[in-house]
Amino acid sequence: MITPRRSTARVSIARVRGDASRDVRDVVAVEEPMEIRLSVPGRGEHQVAVTMRTPGDDFLLAAGFLFGEGLIATRDDVVDLRYCADVEPQEYNIVTVYLAPAAAFDPDSLTRNFYTTSSCGVCGKASLEAVEVRGCAPLPAGTPVVSGDVVRALPGILRERQRVFERTGGLHAAGLFRPDGELVSLREDVGRHNAVDKIIGECFLEGRLPLSDRVLAVSGRASFEIVQKALAAAIPIVVAVGAPSSLAVDLAREFEMTLVGFTKADGYNVYTGRERLA
Amino acid sequence: MITPRRSTARVSIARVRGDASRDVRDVVAVEEPMEIRLSVPGRGEHQVAVTMRTPGDDFLLAAGFLFGEGLIATRDDVVDLRYCADVEPQEYNIVTVYLAPAAAFDPDSLTRNFYTTSSCGVCGKASLEAVEVRGCAPLPAGTPVVSGDVVRALPGILRERQRVFERTGGLHAAGLFRPDGELVSLREDVGRHNAVDKIIGECFLEGRLPLSDRVLAVSGRASFEIVQKALAAAIPIVVAVGAPSSLAVDLAREFEMTLVGFTKADGYNVYTGRERLA
Repeated sequence: MITPRRSTARVSIARVRGDASRDVRDVVAVEEPMEIRLSVPGRGEHQVAVTMRTPGDDFLLAAGFLFGEGLIATRDDVVDLRYCADVEPQEYNIVTVYLAPAAAFDPDSLTRNFYTTSSCGVCGKASLEAVEVRGCAPLPAGTPVVSGDVVRALPGILRERQRVFERTGGLHAAGLFRPDGELVSLREDVGRHNAVDKIIGECFLEGRLPLSDRVLAVSGRASFEIVQKALAAAIPIVVAVGAPSSLAVDLAREFEMTLVGFTKADGYNVYTGRERLA
Repeated sequence: MITPRRSTARVSIARVRGDASRDVRDVVAVEEPMEIRLSVPGRGEHQVAVTMRTPGDDFLLAAGFLFGEGLIATRDDVVDLRYCADVEPQEYNIVTVYLAPAAAFDPDSLTRNFYTTSSCGVCGKASLEAVEVRGCAPLPAGTPVVSGDVVRALPGILRERQRVFERTGGLHAAGLFRPDGELVSLREDVGRHNAVDKIIGECFLEGRLPLSDRVLAVSGRASFEIVQKALAAAIPIVVAVGAPSSLAVDLAREFEMTLVGFTKADGYNVYTGRERLA
């Protein structure tokens, strides 16, 4: 079994090329479950979710996930984040987020939120409405503006800076950029949504939300979930290396976000919000 | 909003190549939530899960999901599958699976299973144990045997037969093959796990489980979840186009499954169970 908290693990494989097979040591991306708990003053601990993730940046992941779910809203809502110490041996797969006494928290919202998240209603329209109900508002029009050169450069920067991917080929990346293309933060995970949660969780914990002047780039496709997480953090521009889904396009259009897909060094497709592209 | 039950949707985009931008009509893969319900004789309907999926093959998806969760075991457990007719206008995003009176079903298992699925304990070891508890047994050693030529050909066959991907670039595929490389079934979805559920659900509904003489090929990476679903259907060989995760390798090794990754026309990596490869 692989030691928790490592993002890569060594494995013995047979590497087959043509008809030749060679025994080699190789490296794979670690995938381990992580449980997120909320400790509410006077109301004990609540299990919120378990996600399969790549260990590392676990507190960022927990904070980003809870923020995306609408369970925490501001930095002051959180007084501490800790690994569970009740389990022997020490368990690095349970993170408890301790809420401040003043944090507005309704335990019933756990059930409601779950339905909303993994689901968001039972049709696309209900899904969009659920995002609105959570308090997301349309993004300010026309700002920031990013040049086509910057957009085309983002996939290359992501790939270049993805250290774990380079060794394993198995991780998604999310990168936060300034409008001039400068990389602010890059996080990796076996789960694309986790990489985005880690980025947003980091900004949440450092009190840097909303991210109204930032661009989010993701290594894979743009699903509804990715656009929803970006929207919660008020990120106005999402650039995906892969394809967007129909509901991602609908959600971006509804909230006036700029959504770019199939981004490569020689071009890209603009699905919504083209006024933010110079 | 996009009409349900269609797997693609048309969108207007700006296609940027170099410094030139052109307005064109393009096609994206549809992503819509689908709710799965279980109707238990004398006990009413239970909401089981909501998954974001590409419409089409919805009954296969529902059956495959429930089978993978251990909530249904044999074809006789299911007497009917229907779209919800209570909603106006007719709603194609809720599928109810009607259990037979004789089907063994414990409503408490819903809670238990959920924890197990999205989670499977809170460490890798607990995750593997959870699969064992569900009744999965090690696969019969050394059978079937597949040639390297067949393995190398699978990604090409998947890609060639992926009709929706061809138009949208936005869908994962899962393909079920005979050991000689003949394609038995191919399903597509925005969610990789859904594509696998559709394949297994189809075989479940046609009474073709277990799939002890079949090979499963997936267009993306091999996560714990994918290997777990293949294992529940007793598929002995999983071939991924992308990278496997550490926990996918651990699970495949534990149950003596053959797991192949980074599969291309000129080679592949064998992580576990190499005795099934000629």
